[in-house]
Amino acid sequence: MDQNRKLEGIIPLRTLVLNDGDTIIEDIMETNIISVNTHMDQEEAGNLFRKYDLIAMPVVDQENRLVGIITIDDIIDIIEQENTEDFQVMAAIEPSEEEYMKTGIMRLARNRIVWLLILMLTATLTGGIIRRNEEVLVSAVTLAAFIPMLMDSAGNAGFQSATLIIRGLALDEIKLHDILKVIWKEFRVSLIVGVILSAVNFAKIYFIDKAGVLIALTVSLSLSITIILAKIVGGSLPIIAKKLGLDPAIMAGPLITTIVDAVALLTYFYLASWLLGI
Amino acid sequence: MDQNRKLEGIIPLRTLVLNDGDTIIEDIMETNIISVNTHMDQEEAGNLFRKYDLIAMPVVDQENRLVGIITIDDIIDIIEQENTEDFQVMAAIEPSEEEYMKTGIMRLARNRIVWLLILMLTATLTGGIIRRNEEVLVSAVTLAAFIPMLMDSAGNAGFQSATLIIRGLALDEIKLHDILKVIWKEFRVSLIVGVILSAVNFAKIYFIDKAGVLIALTVSLSLSITIILAKIVGGSLPIIAKKLGLDPAIMAGPLITTIVDAVALLTYFYLASWLLGI
Repeated sequence: MDQNRKLEGIIPLRTLVLNDGDTIIEDIMETNIISVNTHMDQEEAGNLFRKYDLIAMPVVDQENRLVGIITIDDIIDIIEQENTEDFQVMAAIEPSEEEYMKTGIMRLARNRIVWLLILMLTATLTGGIIRRNEEVLVSAVTLAAFIPMLMDSAGNAGFQSATLIIRGLALDEIKLHDILKVIWKEFRVSLIVGVILSAVNFAKIYFIDKAGVLIALTVSLSLSITIILAKIVGGSLPIIAKKLGLDPAIMAGPLITTIVDAVALLTYFYLASWLLGI
Repeated sequence: MDQNRKLEGIIPLRTLVLNDGDTIIEDIMETNIISVNTHMDQEEAGNLFRKYDLIAMPVVDQENRLVGIITIDDIIDIIEQENTEDFQVMAAIEPSEEEYMKTGIMRLARNRIVWLLILMLTATLTGGIIRRNEEVLVSAVTLAAFIPMLMDSAGNAGFQSATLIIRGLALDEIKLHDILKVIWKEFRVSLIVGVILSAVNFAKIYFIDKAGVLIALTVSLSLSITIILAKIVGGSLPIIAKKLGLDPAIMAGPLITTIVDAVALLTYFYLASWLLGI
């Protein structure tokens, strides 16, 4: 440090030991320093450790004065804690640092009930879409049997994309300005995946369920469109969330499913009334 | 090491530097050694580093002979890699170590299509449950509107439990012999959560949707039972999977939803035909 406590350089213990006793510190110190700031997010500090394979980093304040040191064994705990938080948030749980086996049931219930309530009430919107299209179901009740498959496939497709993007953002492998690249990538992936799924689906409904070509077409076409929309929504929402300063992980588990369910049902009923002339 | 290359003790560089030059190694070495075995799973090694706040560990073979050393900067990469794998598997993606932005679209599509196909086909089982109960839907088509809410709530409740247990298993905080404690804990949590959700649900259907007391009762009772079953299944399946030598994470995302959807619909139709006398 200089006289103002500003950080000038660092020397690993190994370098110190391997040099003669009369070497001057200034000559052997490393001045190209990677340090963390007192205001830096702990996830960011973890990424620096990972990127540069460090075992310790100096901590400086806003005026670049040395205020402490952070070592890698603390970082490992932080990394696992950040990961646990992401897992919990994506599973629609209020994040908690307490170990599961040591947490009381009232606390566990409280961490879970908020999101379950929100999601239950938003899912009634999806129910509202069905209610407004009851006449379609009455005319062709067999259409109801494909709703779970459509909703699940849409949810799974969207969750896949969202998870990859959230993980990429957390590890700093995907940047905010990549959003258009991500959407374009997800669009092409969803075309491939959607066409294969729909072809298998069409064959199953037409040849095995023997439900008629129009029903098979309605379901398969809805599936394709839904998967494309689900993957674009799943890929872009986490990035948009981060841009808005929200936690990208919240956009994955909890919200993606609800949004994508609504998209799936709207597409399905729209296509059904059009193709089946209901 | 002794003459047979068996590990006898370790000395941190810091201890070596702080002792006199004529101290005998044997007197200052640490003989209570925490080491990893060449056959140990990398996740387990990561947990040892976390538990003992180490920065390096000797690696020994089956005969306790020193064969190498593993340092903490490798471990950080391993930890993030294991976490990424768990995130991917839980989101029904074939795990891949390639960064998203550097992976081609054919590869991305291939990593996702397998599980989407499997889940699409298993979801048709759920569709089969609806098909076999079409007469219930025809008699009371309004019941169809609550299917998404029931399926989503069940899926969310099960996924919450599964995620906490999978995470606890990965961090070695939950052991295999804890299974009965976990089930008992999840049962009590699901009672609390289920009763609150059902009460809100009943009020909404009865007072806002004005769908009649029997419909409100059918839906709310199905919701309670489904949440209890979902949380018990979600809590126990990952432990059972690990007992069978399978990856607990596979049991969460991909399979829980499908299983729990089927449970939800069976409960719903059973209660509907009983309470509504269809």
